[in-house]
Amino acid sequence: MTSLGVGLIGTGYMGKCHALAWNAVAPVFGDVERPRLVHLAEANAEHAAKQSAALGFEKSTGDWRTLIADPDVDIVSITTPNVFHPEMAIAALEAGKHVWCEKPMAPAFADAGRMVEAARASGCVAALGYNYIQNPLIRHMKKVLAEGTIGNVHSVRVEMDEDFMADPSAVFFWKSEASSGYGALDDFGVHPLSILSILLGPVEQVMADLAKPFHTRRTQEGKDRAVETFDIAHILLRFAGGVSGAIQLSRSAWGRKGRIAIQLFGSEGTLLYDQERMNELQIFTRQGKASEQGFRTVLAAPSHHPYDKFIPAPGHGLGFNDLKIIEAREVMRAVSGEGAHIIDFEKGLAIERTVHALAHSHRDGCWVKL
Amino acid sequence: MTSLGVGLIGTGYMGKCHALAWNAVAPVFGDVERPRLVHLAEANAEHAAKQSAALGFEKSTGDWRTLIADPDVDIVSITTPNVFHPEMAIAALEAGKHVWCEKPMAPAFADAGRMVEAARASGCVAALGYNYIQNPLIRHMKKVLAEGTIGNVHSVRVEMDEDFMADPSAVFFWKSEASSGYGALDDFGVHPLSILSILLGPVEQVMADLAKPFHTRRTQEGKDRAVETFDIAHILLRFAGGVSGAIQLSRSAWGRKGRIAIQLFGSEGTLLYDQERMNELQIFTRQGKASEQGFRTVLAAPSHHPYDKFIPAPGHGLGFNDLKIIEAREVMRAVSGEGAHIIDFEKGLAIERTVHALAHSHRDGCWVKL
Amino acid sequence: MTSLGVGLIGTGYMGKCHALAWNAVAPVFGDVERPRLVHLAEANAEHAAKQSAALGFEKSTGDWRTLIADPDVDIVSITTPNVFHPEMAIAALEAGKHVWCEKPMAPAFADAGRMVEAARASGCVAALGYNYIQNPLIRHMKKVLAEGTIGNVHSVRVEMDEDFMADPSAVFFWKSEASSGYGALDDFGVHPLSILSILLGPVEQVMADLAKPFHTRRTQEGKDRAVETFDIAHILLRFAGGVSGAIQLSRSAWGRKGRIAIQLFGSEGTLLYDQERMNELQIFTRQGKASEQGFRTVLAAPSHHPYDKFIPAPGHGLGFNDLKIIEAREVMRAVSGEGAHIIDFEKGLAIERTVHALAHSHRDGCWVKL
Amino acid sequence: MTSLGVGLIGTGYMGKCHALAWNAVAPVFGDVERPRLVHLAEANAEHAAKQSAALGFEKSTGDWRTLIADPDVDIVSITTPNVFHPEMAIAALEAGKHVWCEKPMAPAFADAGRMVEAARASGCVAALGYNYIQNPLIRHMKKVLAEGTIGNVHSVRVEMDEDFMADPSAVFFWKSEASSGYGALDDFGVHPLSILSILLGPVEQVMADLAKPFHTRRTQEGKDRAVETFDIAHILLRFAGGVSGAIQLSRSAWGRKGRIAIQLFGSEGTLLYDQERMNELQIFTRQGKASEQGFRTVLAAPSHHPYDKFIPAPGHGLGFNDLKIIEAREVMRAVSGEGAHIIDFEKGLAIERTVHALAHSHRDGCWVKL
Repeated sequence: MTSLGVGLIGTGYMGKCHALAWNAVAPVFGDVERPRLVHLAEANAEHAAKQSAALGFEKSTGDWRTLIADPDVDIVSITTPNVFHPEMAIAALEAGKHVWCEKPMAPAFADAGRMVEAARASGCVAALGYNYIQNPLIRHMKKVLAEGTIGNVHSVRVEMDEDFMADPSAVFFWKSEASSGYGALDDFGVHPLSILSILLGPVEQVMADLAKPFHTRRTQEGKDRAVETFDIAHILLRFAGGVSGAIQLSRSAWGRKGRIAIQLFGSEGTLLYDQERMNELQIFTRQGKASEQGFRTVLAAPSHHPYDKFIPAPGHGLGFNDLKIIEAREVMRAVSGEGAHIIDFEKGLAIERTVHALAHSHRDGCWVKL
Repeated sequence: MTSLGVGLIGTGYMGKCHALAWNAVAPVFGDVERPRLVHLAEANAEHAAKQSAALGFEKSTGDWRTLIADPDVDIVSITTPNVFHPEMAIAALEAGKHVWCEKPMAPAFADAGRMVEAARASGCVAALGYNYIQNPLIRHMKKVLAEGTIGNVHSVRVEMDEDFMADPSAVFFWKSEASSGYGALDDFGVHPLSILSILLGPVEQVMADLAKPFHTRRTQEGKDRAVETFDIAHILLRFAGGVSGAIQLSRSAWGRKGRIAIQLFGSEGTLLYDQERMNELQIFTRQGKASEQGFRTVLAAPSHHPYDKFIPAPGHGLGFNDLKIIEAREVMRAVSGEGAHIIDFEKGLAIERTVHALAHSHRDGCWVKL
Repeated sequence: MTSLGVGLIGTGYMGKCHALAWNAVAPVFGDVERPRLVHLAEANAEHAAKQSAALGFEKSTGDWRTLIADPDVDIVSITTPNVFHPEMAIAALEAGKHVWCEKPMAPAFADAGRMVEAARASGCVAALGYNYIQNPLIRHMKKVLAEGTIGNVHSVRVEMDEDFMADPSAVFFWKSEASSGYGALDDFGVHPLSILSILLGPVEQVMADLAKPFHTRRTQEGKDRAVETFDIAHILLRFAGGVSGAIQLSRSAWGRKGRIAIQLFGSEGTLLYDQERMNELQIFTRQGKASEQGFRTVLAAPSHHPYDKFIPAPGHGLGFNDLKIIEAREVMRAVSGEGAHIIDFEKGLAIERTVHALAHSHRDGCWVKL
Repeated sequence: MTSLGVGLIGTGYMGKCHALAWNAVAPVFGDVERPRLVHLAEANAEHAAKQSAALGFEKSTGDWRTLIADPDVDIVSITTPNVFHPEMAIAALEAGKHVWCEKPMAPAFADAGRMVEAARASGCVAALGYNYIQNPLIRHMKKVLAEGTIGNVHSVRVEMDEDFMADPSAVFFWKSEASSGYGALDDFGVHPLSILSILLGPVEQVMADLAKPFHTRRTQEGKDRAVETFDIAHILLRFAGGVSGAIQLSRSAWGRKGRIAIQLFGSEGTLLYDQERMNELQIFTRQGKASEQGFRTVLAAPSHHPYDKFIPAPGHGLGFNDLKIIEAREVMRAVSGEGAHIIDFEKGLAIERTVHALAHSHRDGCWVKL
């Protein structure tokens, strides 16, 4: 087999991440053939040509359909704004290309459903870019749970907070418009939900209280305009396996920059993680003398696969962009028909269904079953 | 005026704390006359006599009614199990004594109501032992909010966790029986609610999901017995002022020993506190260069009154028992007719009303208004 | 035996601490007879009378020699400025009283030597107020070392930092005069040295580099005056048992308030402690899977004796003043002829000898043997 | 100008890092032409060919002299064991190639001197791989110092610790042989020294105490063999500008994995950094109310250039390997004749001179002037 031919649509931040990942996956892992960076599409031919040179692609185009039609392309990275995902992903799948699409799938739930159908019909890989689950420490948490180190998990809490909308004097922009979605719930909520789906399986019942820290914001014209989205969400969860939980989301939490704080409580111990310290995992187990028990702060290390592929020494630290390189390797694994640690369109749909159920629970003030 | 005559009923841990506080309040503060430790009551005369000698009281009795009848006693510290609070507190108030009663007021809401009535009728001080609110840093948080340092608070989160019921193999005991109450909700919940009532004012609507980490526990006879109380609570709150919030409670959280983690988010900044590090307060404000903003870890210091009464140097640390000494000073202030930072029976009743409303919201699966 | 009769000389911060400790030791520990607070001496009779009432003493005097002559006094707490220690301690010992004297012993090494001789001659208890060693977690560190949990210790680091002299614009005061001593070395250094002597035994060779962060300071008259003491010390140590170490001291370390950070490295693990978080101990041992090893943060708990005497629940926190109560209990133990965990005049002299050796090593730029 | 032609000698961990950096530098920064990965040399042709394919190089060779002779190669990355650095670097420089050589320069000081001479004679760029200094937060520390935010620095402490030699039962290997160098001093010490040289300028006087945690280690044959190197170093420093300091080094510090903890104390504040949390910087400044002062934990963010080139959002975290990408950009800047933030051979020689002076100070037990 010749090496995998890659097409990339979009070169914003996530597009750059995909490009870096495709460039680095072979050197880092050393166990796959280096993918060929075949074709890059951007909004116009000129920009595409420039980006293509910088990112190391062979061809470029201002029309993404040309890229999808290119027989040298085996897999398409889709990193455009969410609104374009359905059309591009479905077209790529229909053309027999594998797809690696950034999350979330689509603003409208129906469109996400159509993407799943296209994926099923194609028989191709249809992976979503939920990169947080690729952190070797998140993967290790899954292993810790499977090995029973903290016993049976009975409850969970997740907080996801940033502060990019914390300033009440910032100018009104599209994230405060209802057309952008519900607010923190869909902007953020998919991340905790993706991690929880990996660690704990499906959610059964949900209840949310969405809140607006600021009811109006000033427009550029200096007028007060009503805010239509909810920057804050307080969520109750009940999982299929009996686990109870809560999620807190805020994009108006001053001082929080990339917090995803997870607390998993089990019958034998507790696991803690915070994305702002993504190279640390805390474990409490009730072993040994009471006088010497405590939360252990474990630093990411070669024993947390695939950290070892990046750095041979412990405690030196992976970065956020490295997660995309791991994700690329998993996508390649899926393409090769191996078991892969990814969230595919099918699982992604379940996440988006939960988001919509949460919005309904808030509207109706009661629990919603999934 | 002669110095305050103190009676103490009960000498368990909280009784000892009251005794230590009455012994220390004058030396620590240096601005009040040393209270006379007049009378101590315990379950029998012998134990009372022994404790009286150790704790420095003049007289002792095996009958608490004798203590209440003692004209030398001006104020009665009630530190017996909750079930005795109503009878003792009401008797003391009716005898014209001031009362300093440990929380919570009473297992039955009606009894708590009767205590409030007795307090009103007596014109005496009727204070509750909510000592966490006495931490100079909690008091400083209130000041920070009042000064607008973090702007208008729009959301809040509190977690209170311990692990004394985390072990599924521990023998069934009374805290798993319905007769003991709801579980974490009343056992714990009153603490976060007391702090929030001080910081944010009254709660308007509540919704709870109570959960059992273990559905049965083994009795001493080796049989499985159904657990009747909820060791876990996930709570949604809406405050009168528009603030939204969430509280998480667990007495089955391995590794947590005395966690009361508070997060207050405002329009200009954020405040963080954790009782397990009770000498630290974290503040984020959006001042100065973005490149040098961050959460400041403030160590308790003389500038956080009344830390200065204990230690003249910053960062040396108060202890949990010191909070009771501060509380004693506040109770004395109330007795002197000065404004005092305490939770009296009136405010205590509001906290207990909220607890019962939360239990109802769980039962009915919907929001409850207060 | 009648209960112990206590005399207290001095009622500054440390005097108040002694008074609080004598008031609280019986209620807290419950295993000793309540000491009688017999006699209090201050600089003048009026102040003595006032303090006596507040601190709960029976008699008061403006002349400390009267207190020492009082037959009801069995033990004398000496909490006056260091310069008075030798005269008072020697007089008390010669009068057959036990002595509990604040550290350090004396500005002049010869005086400290005379104090030791008086103690030997008297056969009385002669204890020093090195209260940090009373922290249940410091005591637990000693136990951990004895049990071999971290194997053989091979190296140690201690940092002691505060910031009360960090401000270069603060007015010149007596701590910058040579008559006050060397600077951080004697002002601070005795604390790390006392802890290390408890944990690791005697020091054999020392080498110091003393430094002045500011060479002049402004007097109240607005003139620059040369600073004569060293606010900073960098120290190398070699212990009798082969352990190597380093101590850093600074009283000009902005942001540090009461830091005493200890790192003990052994063949099987590491122990970390910081006085600013005096209720936490960190332990690393190389047990279990590499992927789950890490520093455990242990919270102070009843299993760390005598924390249990203060609070029955773990993680609730002792305070700095509580250490003095523990010390009082140890002093009473010594008086009863039991083995006591204290630094007596003999051990105190070794600490002060080390301080002077360090000053000589700096002056001569070479190692000094003890 | 055509794009930069890169040759890479060595493909161990550091070789891989260089390859990843050369692959990623153009996509990440977007302001330079993508370097051509021209030639790769390894110990034999077969291995070279395999690595060349994985790492994306055009040509490969089993003889590094062939690579140096290749006219398409403009710059040579040297990542072989230290012992080969002098020969390769000098040959490359003599062939008119720029050189990017991993640190340290050479086991023998004389060889390091010859490398500097070759660099001077060539007029080419001769950069060393001191990647820690490339961390945007370390670079920001330099900026903070320059702006006077913490005033004049008067003292500094650095600790560098790992635990790869902490196990006394591990088999004797070459790092315990004198032929490998002094021990922690040269193995580690160059890192703190490189950072300090960037932040504080030249060192003037040094004094070290080197120590062996274990005097013998067991060989594979089961015999005890004397350890010849020092796994521990305690260091005193005096800088040209009057700053005093201390460095602690240990490669036997259980639980430490990649600690480089820096404390910079100034007249107006303090800066703290720890490489194990490489995305955090702590700043204390004495501004605002005493009651709200504290160490601010600043998370790496786009405002810390060039973090912004990697991730547009704050708090998401760079990794250790990303530092090499930044270094590559700086090396390219040097090649273009722009001011570059690198440690060149000249500065590297000063670092290695200090290392040797430290070893002499230990041997002689006295201060050594530089």
